[in-house]
Amino acid sequence: MLKKILIANRGEIAVRIIRACSEMGITSVAIYTEPDRYGLHVKRADESYSLGDDPIAGYLNPRAIVSLAKQTGCDAIHPGYGFLSENADFAKLCEEQGIQFIGPKSSVINNMGDKTQARDSMRAAGVPITPGSDGNLKDLAEALELAETIGYPVMLKATSGGGGRGIRRCDSAAELTTQYPRVISEATKAFGSAEVFLEKCIVNPKHIEVQILGDSHGNVVHLYERDCSIQRRNQKLIEIAPSPQLTPEQRSYIGDLAVKAAQAVSYENAGTVEFLLTGNQVYFMEMNTRVQVEHTITEQITGVDIVREQIQIASGMPLTYRQEDIQFRGFALQFRINAEDPKNDFLPSFGRISHYYAPGGPGVRVDTAIYTGYEIPPYYDSMCLKLVVWALNWDDVIQRGKRALDDMRLQGITTTTEYYKQILDHKDFKAAEFNTSFVPDHPELLKYSEKARPAEMALAIATAIAAHTGW
Amino acid sequence: MLKKILIANRGEIAVRIIRACSEMGITSVAIYTEPDRYGLHVKRADESYSLGDDPIAGYLNPRAIVSLAKQTGCDAIHPGYGFLSENADFAKLCEEQGIQFIGPKSSVINNMGDKTQARDSMRAAGVPITPGSDGNLKDLAEALELAETIGYPVMLKATSGGGGRGIRRCDSAAELTTQYPRVISEATKAFGSAEVFLEKCIVNPKHIEVQILGDSHGNVVHLYERDCSIQRRNQKLIEIAPSPQLTPEQRSYIGDLAVKAAQAVSYENAGTVEFLLTGNQVYFMEMNTRVQVEHTITEQITGVDIVREQIQIASGMPLTYRQEDIQFRGFALQFRINAEDPKNDFLPSFGRISHYYAPGGPGVRVDTAIYTGYEIPPYYDSMCLKLVVWALNWDDVIQRGKRALDDMRLQGITTTTEYYKQILDHKDFKAAEFNTSFVPDHPELLKYSEKARPAEMALAIATAIAAHTGW
Repeated sequence: MLKKILIANRGEIAVRIIRACSEMGITSVAIYTEPDRYGLHVKRADESYSLGDDPIAGYLNPRAIVSLAKQTGCDAIHPGYGFLSENADFAKLCEEQGIQFIGPKSSVINNMGDKTQARDSMRAAGVPITPGSDGNLKDLAEALELAETIGYPVMLKATSGGGGRGIRRCDSAAELTTQYPRVISEATKAFGSAEVFLEKCIVNPKHIEVQILGDSHGNVVHLYERDCSIQRRNQKLIEIAPSPQLTPEQRSYIGDLAVKAAQAVSYENAGTVEFLLTGNQVYFMEMNTRVQVEHTITEQITGVDIVREQIQIASGMPLTYRQEDIQFRGFALQFRINAEDPKNDFLPSFGRISHYYAPGGPGVRVDTAIYTGYEIPPYYDSMCLKLVVWALNWDDVIQRGKRALDDMRLQGITTTTEYYKQILDHKDFKAAEFNTSFVPDHPELLKYSEKARPAEMALAIATAIAAHTGW
Repeated sequence: MLKKILIANRGEIAVRIIRACSEMGITSVAIYTEPDRYGLHVKRADESYSLGDDPIAGYLNPRAIVSLAKQTGCDAIHPGYGFLSENADFAKLCEEQGIQFIGPKSSVINNMGDKTQARDSMRAAGVPITPGSDGNLKDLAEALELAETIGYPVMLKATSGGGGRGIRRCDSAAELTTQYPRVISEATKAFGSAEVFLEKCIVNPKHIEVQILGDSHGNVVHLYERDCSIQRRNQKLIEIAPSPQLTPEQRSYIGDLAVKAAQAVSYENAGTVEFLLTGNQVYFMEMNTRVQVEHTITEQITGVDIVREQIQIASGMPLTYRQEDIQFRGFALQFRINAEDPKNDFLPSFGRISHYYAPGGPGVRVDTAIYTGYEIPPYYDSMCLKLVVWALNWDDVIQRGKRALDDMRLQGITTTTEYYKQILDHKDFKAAEFNTSFVPDHPELLKYSEKARPAEMALAIATAIAAHTGW
């Protein structure tokens, strides 16, 4: 078993990993940059080291991080999500330097990071992919011919792209002609590669992803799916496990597909296979080769501790569970509480948290690195808290979600909390009938009043009184 | 469905009930006494009313509470635990005044509150009771004769007693002769009744209790058992669900016994049947006719929301679950974080909470009414927080418990937190081999040092630094 782990991340995911280390008797080492020195991960790790004054650079410096891991006697690095988590060169450097990278092999990260390679692997494995180019496009002429064959709209994508950049939807030949040089130019600048490919645009799909775990002994299991259709501009807002929209047959089919996808690339560690679902048709979208923000809801329904499994897998141990051991129960929702103002185009709202009180009681889980008095630095992601609720059935989990959002006190910054309550109140959400167009299709949900309900007003008054007593 | 509920309680259980009301769309009404006006239940309820300056009297005044319920348009009262929750006269007053009492009928509370009546009911229903007197004792001579027959040690108990009072263990005829008049005198003073009975003393039993739910349509189910053997002077400290000490056959047998016990008295609402277990022998101890402090761990393993079920049952609805629907998964532990100093004979340590930060992450649930700056009033129970952890297996739940206890920040008062870590570290606890003698048998566990472990020291230092930044 690994003995000492450096956590190459910050915020809530660093705290999450520290907690797993603590439960497993593993020493945790945090890194931070000076503007981030009041981060909870710094306080909670067994050891913490500064990687300089720049807010970001230290978290993105493979050599400095691997060197620190060696100096401090760590035998492994957990990359979390974001930052270097899907950087194949970082994983390779760890491999070369004898530090266990808690994730898949660098070659697999590479393969899945290259979108045309990933499509090739999936096609070969018999996993359905969207109709589109067979590898990278040669030129505009090929793009136009292919688009004519598969039909508009199409997506033109940078092969090395990611995070929603280097992607354009084209509804016609004229648009494709205009966008082609633009995407190439953007891809060259942003990713250092001019390669692009094309695929059919699946209109208003559901976003369904499957959590998988693979060990170094060739075992792969899935932990059922998450429905992440409630998203805005490719940013997930509310995630759900399992999807309330799948039939048992669809669930079983899509779970098996994900295992097949992982097996095709000899996948080790935790990963997520993302699919687009439209009607009864499922398409492979991409594979994320790391722990995801929303792994929490899978933990809530299956009881499996995914970060613990990651560490055990990286220690060379076989999976704790066979597929038949993994049962799911109830429904879980995760609300990404972002420091953003939904009414102002989701503009980030960084600043000092004047008051924070965690929601609690039955079926509530909180993952966060904030605390009363914490100043959210403007350099990082705006997500400041993950509120997860669980209940045995769909109606109850919605009511529990509303209660927990009401229960939480988070003052001093504007957050997405109120907006999520509006979503929970919408009839289509309650009826479990939604796809990725839900958020853009319902701009009216942004027209809420913070003081709409009498109970809320009473609470606001109570809160004002309470400010004197510090609760 | 009930529309508006008055909560005749305070502290964490009042907050717990408010949360259930909130999830069910029911208006909640809190009561408080002036010294308790900064309680979280007052802030979180939809409405709150003062019942006078005396810290306790208001919470124990049936007429004032029922009258307030009527004045404020409530259709029901939830009594929580403690206070008036097992007061049959209070339940009867509610019945007479047309207010739904969220609990069993007053006649059932009466029957179960009278210990010889309860024994009679159980004997008639075929539920094993400890050998002992057939009703109340006539005189000392009868007591001595009976004790000779069943064998010493015996317990001499006040028929109307409770809360550990009016009970004496007698190891010999001489002791029984001495104690007999004392118990009668104590019972007369404390409970207004001179009636006493005698039963065999079960030495060092395990304390196993079964959660049951009964509706007004005659359905009764059990939600499996809790192991509350980790207790001190009849006060439970750490509760466990399910018991790691039962075989599946014992579990099934004891669950069925509890259902039989509840059916025998046409039990309605949530209740707990407590048993003593020694070897393979099970004895009925008593039935608690209310929600219990430790209902939380049953909720964690079964997913059933017990307070919601209580409210639905009181609304006349049938149970949501049949016995076969109720599955349990994993293990849950509840730590009663008490404002007490274990090293000083568990002396209460009331005062101001200078800093509180809730533990979080996977498998952690918190039920509390405290907050940073809250002054714990000296008039009430010393339990200030319930920390509940869950994991799929026994080893993991212990590690998670230690992590969550470490994770919590609760400063300004002395608590039982550190002591619980010592218990979790004990080999007998880890091996799931303990009974009610565990705590008295291990006084050495009280000799911990708050700064015993390096990680703890690092945390203490970090906490000192953090004091400046308010986390």
